[in-house]
Amino acid sequence: MKNIEIFDTTLRDGAQGEGIQFSQRDRLDVARALDSFGVKYIEAGYPGANPKDLAFFKKLAREELKYALAAAFGATRRRGITADQDANCQAILRAKTPCVVIFGKAWDLHVTEVLRASLDENLEMVTDTVRFFKDTNKEVIFDAEHFFDGYKNNPAYALRVLEAALNGGADCLVLCDTNGGGFPDEIFNAVKAVCEKFPARIGIHCHNDGGNAAANSIMAVKAGATHVQGTFTGFGERCGNAALSTIIPNLQLKLGYNCVPPENMAFLTETARTINEIANLTPNIGAPFTGISAFAHKAGMHIDGVSKNTAAFEHIEPEAVGNKRRLLTSEISGRGAVLPVLQRFAPELTKDSPQASDMTMLLKKLEREGYQYESAEASFELVVRKQLGAYRSFFDLKQYNIHIGQDDVCFATVKISVEGQNEICAAEGEGPVNALDGALRRALEGFYPQLSEMRLIDYKVRVLESRDATAAKVRVLIQSTDGRDVWTTVGVSANIIRASWKALVDSVEYKLLKDDL
Amino acid sequence: MKNIEIFDTTLRDGAQGEGIQFSQRDRLDVARALDSFGVKYIEAGYPGANPKDLAFFKKLAREELKYALAAAFGATRRRGITADQDANCQAILRAKTPCVVIFGKAWDLHVTEVLRASLDENLEMVTDTVRFFKDTNKEVIFDAEHFFDGYKNNPAYALRVLEAALNGGADCLVLCDTNGGGFPDEIFNAVKAVCEKFPARIGIHCHNDGGNAAANSIMAVKAGATHVQGTFTGFGERCGNAALSTIIPNLQLKLGYNCVPPENMAFLTETARTINEIANLTPNIGAPFTGISAFAHKAGMHIDGVSKNTAAFEHIEPEAVGNKRRLLTSEISGRGAVLPVLQRFAPELTKDSPQASDMTMLLKKLEREGYQYESAEASFELVVRKQLGAYRSFFDLKQYNIHIGQDDVCFATVKISVEGQNEICAAEGEGPVNALDGALRRALEGFYPQLSEMRLIDYKVRVLESRDATAAKVRVLIQSTDGRDVWTTVGVSANIIRASWKALVDSVEYKLLKDDL
Repeated sequence: MKNIEIFDTTLRDGAQGEGIQFSQRDRLDVARALDSFGVKYIEAGYPGANPKDLAFFKKLAREELKYALAAAFGATRRRGITADQDANCQAILRAKTPCVVIFGKAWDLHVTEVLRASLDENLEMVTDTVRFFKDTNKEVIFDAEHFFDGYKNNPAYALRVLEAALNGGADCLVLCDTNGGGFPDEIFNAVKAVCEKFPARIGIHCHNDGGNAAANSIMAVKAGATHVQGTFTGFGERCGNAALSTIIPNLQLKLGYNCVPPENMAFLTETARTINEIANLTPNIGAPFTGISAFAHKAGMHIDGVSKNTAAFEHIEPEAVGNKRRLLTSEISGRGAVLPVLQRFAPELTKDSPQASDMTMLLKKLEREGYQYESAEASFELVVRKQLGAYRSFFDLKQYNIHIGQDDVCFATVKISVEGQNEICAAEGEGPVNALDGALRRALEGFYPQLSEMRLIDYKVRVLESRDATAAKVRVLIQSTDGRDVWTTVGVSANIIRASWKALVDSVEYKLLKDDL
Repeated sequence: MKNIEIFDTTLRDGAQGEGIQFSQRDRLDVARALDSFGVKYIEAGYPGANPKDLAFFKKLAREELKYALAAAFGATRRRGITADQDANCQAILRAKTPCVVIFGKAWDLHVTEVLRASLDENLEMVTDTVRFFKDTNKEVIFDAEHFFDGYKNNPAYALRVLEAALNGGADCLVLCDTNGGGFPDEIFNAVKAVCEKFPARIGIHCHNDGGNAAANSIMAVKAGATHVQGTFTGFGERCGNAALSTIIPNLQLKLGYNCVPPENMAFLTETARTINEIANLTPNIGAPFTGISAFAHKAGMHIDGVSKNTAAFEHIEPEAVGNKRRLLTSEISGRGAVLPVLQRFAPELTKDSPQASDMTMLLKKLEREGYQYESAEASFELVVRKQLGAYRSFFDLKQYNIHIGQDDVCFATVKISVEGQNEICAAEGEGPVNALDGALRRALEGFYPQLSEMRLIDYKVRVLESRDATAAKVRVLIQSTDGRDVWTTVGVSANIIRASWKALVDSVEYKLLKDDL
């Protein structure tokens, strides 16, 4: 079984996607998700172009990564100076990564028209820059930008660029379809020619402008490439990069290559959804392997087919990538998935217990309303406990009111009652939810001083069915911590304040329950 | 130049996509869009399975189609009866289309396990059914379902199924990758073998479960197929069908095939967006060729490159498919992107004009506050116009107030003034923003009746630095339309209501300005 190195550039090329903006925390979350899934390289930034990237590399250096190596990206040195004098090369060094990725021009048009250098100068820039980093004992991956367009236009020169990188000591030559217009047969033939000519590690980096990025990457592997670059869910400049979440299962489950530890493959779907969630992207329901519709059957004929033999209308088993089969028109059990959770609180339950079917029905109803518990386990536990009677109430909410004026002043009043004793408190906040949070805590802290340990650390809003515009439902996720645990809660409503309030109340209830157990 | 027949099944296979539901009116709009773009076949339904489809075929028969032929879809006759006795075959006849598509099983597993027929019976069913329709003088296209899986499992039998269709008189043999798991080289080799064996029109029908549907379809054409089936924008069962809007420009603009009248190619983007709009799908911004980001450049280096030579980072000219190049104004890019926008309002400006550097500084300041204009071009135009003095004010906002109670009641009051005349209005809404929107419109509609044409069609919320939890800044994007244009505006604040309000006001101002020019 041939090993394939998976190189993820979500944090560098992915950040070039329209609408993508990662905070430093987001980046760390992406890196952790990639590492725990088992990718070999995480390209985490372009320190010469963006000072924030340098700060992130420092943060990342403090992480203990299980599988992945951090890589910093940058251009070949500029003309007329040494790599040592080049600010971009110096910035890459400061990132202190075990691996660096140097990109150089492999298309003569780019050398003369964009770089405005001579063809020979460009070769020297490639060799020098690679050697500069090899002399610091780093692994150097050379990205041959526009390799395939260059190979079509001036094949001899494109190959000389690769040779120049090898002369500098490059560890891996990555052939890039930067404009994303290549076809599978062209890519296959060019990669094959390069593999035959150079006894080196050869990689592939495709963009999706022609819609063929995954196919092109797979054909490159069939032609001999052993290193695949892409972004995990495919977002990136223009039409995006090759999606690793599509390529990895194709290679590993269907073609017998080894990309990630086999036991991690069942986390493919979760990893893809986590990364889209961090990037605040509406998930593509039809995404190959990982989309919620990827194994959803709607035609009656198809439902009949898969119930006789799943291979009838499925190219792989959904469980192999951690996804689920869904039969869209029929009442499905789902009970199988609910039971283990119920048994945590009531081990005596079986799938025939009335509680199991009640719970399944309740969850279906909540899901139709827009609730999603995959990333809100604290709210899920509250739902289950309330349904099973394994819950006690800590306070009753009597009323809340919010007033917002144009000068940004937000006031909230909250009235609660604890064991018959009423309390009413008001607070001012940066926005209505912040004010509401303040008022609720003030009202409760006299009864439950431990709430002062708790703070909210993350707040996310997703508009569901956004075509209803300002009357659309929103789903709010709130993450909280008390310094020991971290938990996430969810609320859904057409009123964003109401949705936030539900998630806030769940968060407080979960904290009180947790401390009470 | 070889002709390729384009066969669209948006109305049949596309309707199997999760969440897709077409009204009769929607179907007619889709058919018209497809016909005016120039596809050769419109598969408009499965009359044996769905009586509504039959009603639609009657409607469609009254349309004067310029390019397209209507096709009705259905299965081979059932076992043990003649095609004449088969209700499904009779339903197809009643659709009265010039062309029928008969699908039959080409994978032995399906014949024995799903159909539960003998292998020979299946061959007879294929021949009989095709002959039945040929005897009525219809063009008969035979869809060999699961051909590629069948060809892998039992190649002799898969080929016998094709032969059976030819024996019945089939005009075209379509090889289907029904489970969507094929790879480009497998598809190429199988199609080539079929083309060599049968002197017939050969077609391809791919699904996208492995993410390779477009590439597989293109490779089938390279192997000799001359008929391509797909859905226009790619939606369909599970991960969808091959997207014709991706395949057509690849074949016609890059590989020299002739799929649609060349003068229609510039309507590709509009056709794709119209069909997604009818299907009520959030458009995929990164869709190859037709997505709004397909030719959007964000990295400074890329913007620099395309401004020197567009081929530097574009595989085709966006105009060739009716799309547009966009230089995104993100923090990564600089003055280069700002100048062309300034010049739209003040053509005499150069990059050395003080207005250019003032504007760059203003944008940097706004970006630091969390504004992002790459997907909010209407707000961006307002910023530029205000900065250049190319703007007049339509109303002054005096005050707004919102009250939210626990029972989900939201009231908003808005006070504005137009040329010294005050107006105060109130409205109730599903949430605070919906209420605010209602109150603002009521207050303004007396002065500007054209605002009644305008509606909000999309509302998105992004929490910036979400780790500040409920005190974090949020960015709100609002998309609006007046039936002619679509525009997007942005607002940023730590108060989500305030951020929404800013985007709302921009949206109204942009509408008034646009109508005033």
